Amino acid sequence: MTAHASQNETSATQIDDVVAYMAGLGQAARAAATQMRRAVTGDKNRALLAMAEHLQRRRGEILEANASDLARGRDNGLEPALLDRLALNDARIDAMIEGLEQVAALPDPVGEIEGLRYRPSGIQVGQMRVPLGVIGIIYESRPNVTMEAASLCLKSGNASILRGGSEARDSNAAIAACIRAGLREAGLPEDAVQVVATTDRAAVGQLIAMPEYVDVIIPRGGKSLIERISREARVPVIKHLDGVCHVYIDATADPEKALAIAVNAKTHRYGTCNTMETLLVDAPVAEELLPRLAQAYAVYEVELRGCERSRAILDGIAAASEEDWYAEYLAPVLAVRVVDGMEAAIEHIERYGSHHTDAIVTQDYGLARRFMAEVDSSSVMVNASTRFADGFEYGLGAEIGISTDKLHARGPVGLEGLTTRKYVVLGDGQVRQ
Amino acid sequence: MTAHASQNETSATQIDDVVAYMAGLGQAARAAATQMRRAVTGDKNRALLAMAEHLQRRRGEILEANASDLARGRDNGLEPALLDRLALNDARIDAMIEGLEQVAALPDPVGEIEGLRYRPSGIQVGQMRVPLGVIGIIYESRPNVTMEAASLCLKSGNASILRGGSEARDSNAAIAACIRAGLREAGLPEDAVQVVATTDRAAVGQLIAMPEYVDVIIPRGGKSLIERISREARVPVIKHLDGVCHVYIDATADPEKALAIAVNAKTHRYGTCNTMETLLVDAPVAEELLPRLAQAYAVYEVELRGCERSRAILDGIAAASEEDWYAEYLAPVLAVRVVDGMEAAIEHIERYGSHHTDAIVTQDYGLARRFMAEVDSSSVMVNASTRFADGFEYGLGAEIGISTDKLHARGPVGLEGLTTRKYVVLGDGQVRQ
Repeated sequence: MTAHASQNETSATQIDDVVAYMAGLGQAARAAATQMRRAVTGDKNRALLAMAEHLQRRRGEILEANASDLARGRDNGLEPALLDRLALNDARIDAMIEGLEQVAALPDPVGEIEGLRYRPSGIQVGQMRVPLGVIGIIYESRPNVTMEAASLCLKSGNASILRGGSEARDSNAAIAACIRAGLREAGLPEDAVQVVATTDRAAVGQLIAMPEYVDVIIPRGGKSLIERISREARVPVIKHLDGVCHVYIDATADPEKALAIAVNAKTHRYGTCNTMETLLVDAPVAEELLPRLAQAYAVYEVELRGCERSRAILDGIAAASEEDWYAEYLAPVLAVRVVDGMEAAIEHIERYGSHHTDAIVTQDYGLARRFMAEVDSSSVMVNASTRFADGFEYGLGAEIGISTDKLHARGPVGLEGLTTRKYVVLGDGQVRQ
Repeated sequence: MTAHASQNETSATQIDDVVAYMAGLGQAARAAATQMRRAVTGDKNRALLAMAEHLQRRRGEILEANASDLARGRDNGLEPALLDRLALNDARIDAMIEGLEQVAALPDPVGEIEGLRYRPSGIQVGQMRVPLGVIGIIYESRPNVTMEAASLCLKSGNASILRGGSEARDSNAAIAACIRAGLREAGLPEDAVQVVATTDRAAVGQLIAMPEYVDVIIPRGGKSLIERISREARVPVIKHLDGVCHVYIDATADPEKALAIAVNAKTHRYGTCNTMETLLVDAPVAEELLPRLAQAYAVYEVELRGCERSRAILDGIAAASEEDWYAEYLAPVLAVRVVDGMEAAIEHIERYGSHHTDAIVTQDYGLARRFMAEVDSSSVMVNASTRFADGFEYGLGAEIGISTDKLHARGPVGLEGLTTRKYVVLGDGQVRQ
């Protein structure tokens, strides 16, 4: 354990053999995972709170390390948006501390037994929630993600190997020291959370190709990175691709609710995956609602791109091309289409959407019921803003990401998504007849 | 739909372009999946019962088709064991009919909403069980699997593409005709179940490489086939690898229960994945129990291969080599090891086992509790025979297989394992603050 801990502390340039280094982390993680599986809730919480204390106590060191990352970033011409995500300050460290306290306060999912029932043979059968084992997390240069990922993997009883963006390497090393100290103080294995020390890109290629040591990979970042990792990974990947979210306003909608939802879903934040990118409006109410919507969006300077029928109602808006229906703008741009009823809306959503989050606004019970059943998205909403698709809003307490996969975890992934279920059978000497 | 249905009926040799043929099946399956997602329970059950009627009515045709498969198999020198699995008779057709009736009687998992709760924002959030979409099943020359797989995929609201072994092609075509007739009579899309008509092996390669049409692949067959498919698949795979199952008899065990469980776990059936392959006996009771166990196994002509310590107790048994601890014998052979307590037993299980099914026999509450929590297998048992690890015994009603994966489905996979969960959000105009 000590060997690896000290390995973690060596600087990037001293690691010559990345393959051997990553295998070492993998082995240590596997060993730690066996101990973590048995870790009791109290010890895990103690570790989380101790990490929070170390963040508090080492605030100066962390900000210093971050300043050196930022200086290097500026020298290397890093874009302002990336520098902003890389930057730590007192408020962001406070948020990390608060995040740790929140995760400590969440119920421990490990060991929960569901559905324990007697069978005719006399055995009792149920399913127990258990950790996945070793989780590899690959993310960009956002040092706060280091602590967030560490805390969620730890609370769910997993060992983790964290590979953050190289621009954040000094910040991550400083945070990693707090993590190790917290684990140590709680009597948990320090290798339960390992931060990859090398900035060598080959480390990622190794991390995703060690099924003997790593049970699942969670990449967080741009679509192209995630696609590449999914393609090349030799272990399962829980991933988030795009969020092309729709709001469909049915003719039966309450107009005020429709307006509020359509405006909130687009303008509450532009860069998030649960932001609406295409608005579908039922033909009978298009003439009444579209001008009011356009007026509301104008306040936020949202650019509208419309189909022919919406352009006939709204003067001067740009024409939406076929690509606009597929677009995840992540910007103050909105595609608008007039459709003939819910069936047509669902067809549009199925064809162009990304199965992330889609909402209907309607007062019709039957349509609401059908929309819920028939739209194949990770979140389906009735009369609510797509912006609610979020682990905190859903009550998961925290989220490691939003999965657009169908298998294992779908939608916001909290502690439960980082666990699996095994069958437990309790008998009293029963044998199979 | 009709085009594909008739395509299904053309004989294997007439399909020249396998890639185009499989893409056609994929497209048709995707379209059918959209309709199946909306299918109501009554229609699905009607289809299953109609299929059962057609099996009954076309018994003669099916047995005739099977006779032609068997004749061709004999001409091609197929092994007797394979011929036996290929063979249909009245009893096996009865079992298929009964299976359909059982699946019809199972509760429909689709649409079940779990945990619907109010959140502080006023929205209600829950998770709804929904079909996976399109499931590809690859299996060997066992025609009864065609009906079993079709019925489970249908009841869980999925479209399926079934690729059985080429030796069963005429039997499968006859069964496929019953499936289509049943779907038609219930008003469900005939493409909801498609049996691949070509025996061209390239069809498998295509089936596992169409993520746009197929959501998950379930291979059933030998380990090498499954490993190859897992390696080459471009879609998620739910798979079963090996079952190296253990029974650990602790010093605190009730000797009679230990004996009964150890004998049943080995001798109830040899060729099944939940059969015990290694018996671990706690040192303090080895001298008392091993001779009694050996005597019991002798009745069944089970060959024992032991560690040094067990050989010191049992005269004349063979020495177990390192490979024996890893072996899935699927035969009347058993590896036996004397260990020092539960910790050592768990270490052995973790090192050599396949995380399938492992049992402890003990009367000690604390040990039972720890074994359940600490052994990382898809089924962990206390005082019960490993042979219980089975969808029927667990109350799933039926199983498509036993998953040795950790993600998504683990252990026996029934209807629930063929579904996923999406979030549903019910609001009344709520927007995110």
